[in-house]
Amino acid sequence: MSIKIVPDIIVGRLPIYLRALRYMKDKNQEILSSQKLGPAEIKKLETTSSQELGESVGISAAQIRKDLSQFGGFGTQGTGYKIDKLIERLSFFLKVNQVWDVAVIGAGDMGHALTRYQGFSDRGFKISAVFDNNPEIIGKRIGNLVIQSMDSMTGVVKNANIAIAMLTVPASVAQEVTDQLVDAGIKAILNYAPISINVPENVVVQYIDPSLHLQRMTYYL
Amino acid sequence: MSIKIVPDIIVGRLPIYLRALRYMKDKNQEILSSQKLGPAEIKKLETTSSQELGESVGISAAQIRKDLSQFGGFGTQGTGYKIDKLIERLSFFLKVNQVWDVAVIGAGDMGHALTRYQGFSDRGFKISAVFDNNPEIIGKRIGNLVIQSMDSMTGVVKNANIAIAMLTVPASVAQEVTDQLVDAGIKAILNYAPISINVPENVVVQYIDPSLHLQRMTYYL
Repeated sequence: MSIKIVPDIIVGRLPIYLRALRYMKDKNQEILSSQKLGPAEIKKLETTSSQELGESVGISAAQIRKDLSQFGGFGTQGTGYKIDKLIERLSFFLKVNQVWDVAVIGAGDMGHALTRYQGFSDRGFKISAVFDNNPEIIGKRIGNLVIQSMDSMTGVVKNANIAIAMLTVPASVAQEVTDQLVDAGIKAILNYAPISINVPENVVVQYIDPSLHLQRMTYYL
Repeated sequence: MSIKIVPDIIVGRLPIYLRALRYMKDKNQEILSSQKLGPAEIKKLETTSSQELGESVGISAAQIRKDLSQFGGFGTQGTGYKIDKLIERLSFFLKVNQVWDVAVIGAGDMGHALTRYQGFSDRGFKISAVFDNNPEIIGKRIGNLVIQSMDSMTGVVKNANIAIAMLTVPASVAQEVTDQLVDAGIKAILNYAPISINVPENVVVQYIDPSLHLQRMTYYL
């Protein structure tokens, strides 16, 4: 079996397609539960095209066809893509046909908001632990979770085999905490601390920094 | 005067350089206030190189030199870049040498966290209004700001000449609210709603969706 390496820029667009397809599916289920449709209409509803998908995400139909063909052509010329099938394939490819445990590091405002965020559960993720080093909040609850001490982080992450962390600590300690996460076996870090962090080659990092995104836009104003 | 068009991919890296430079400057100020240095040492501290900057952000020195040369070479071969000067130039270029008013739309957990976030003020942004359509929270305070009704949004945004909005509403209403924002004169939207939105060509959008960033990493796990 040959393994095709998919360029990172394409990998980055696949979650956008997946999100749009799931949204289409949800809307279709609303329509199906409120209207009586014939078999042909249902079949049409359950299918999308590169044009329709492209319009909903602001990417050209040609680009979408090219991206999806990278990991196996499964659209049919003239009839388009089965939404369910495409969701299944993209989820499999992105490895979100399973649920990943995620640790939140830092239980300030952002850590709280992420721990309570409703948008993870149906997209492959579950916040299963939250840590902070502030004695005043350790032991308190956020939803179903108890805020645990940073001292217990390594043990908890190793025991539960958690591979993903969201980092919401101050910039000044971000690298030190990152090193601890890597030692504990974390393999993917979503970094909310407003600073670049260094990790070994086998660890992936993505960044969320609202000021950075805003600054990228002000250039165009 | 010739205007050089800088590719978007370079524009996207400039805020990363700016963030790292400001962090260097803060650290240097700590050193200067705690140690007695000679003029040569101070001069060295106030200077950085493409190598040093590159290591702190994980981008090659050659790429950094190329990026910075796009909008005027102001490094000196052998002596590097004056940190202050480079901060000033990048801030000017990204138009964050001024403070932009920002409206937060949606005062749920994420809207709260953003409104209270400390990382905007020194990077060119100030949250100056927050809106929600839930009568139970309209009138309540987040820090110094009172949550205002969505009905008043257009008037407030137009009066205060607010150009930037952060959108933290549910996906189901994101497009409708986006259309209202555009009508009110908003020119840049940082969209936290987990859905793509359509805007006219003169409006810029950036996306923050933690599930999307996480899905981009699970592929590599």
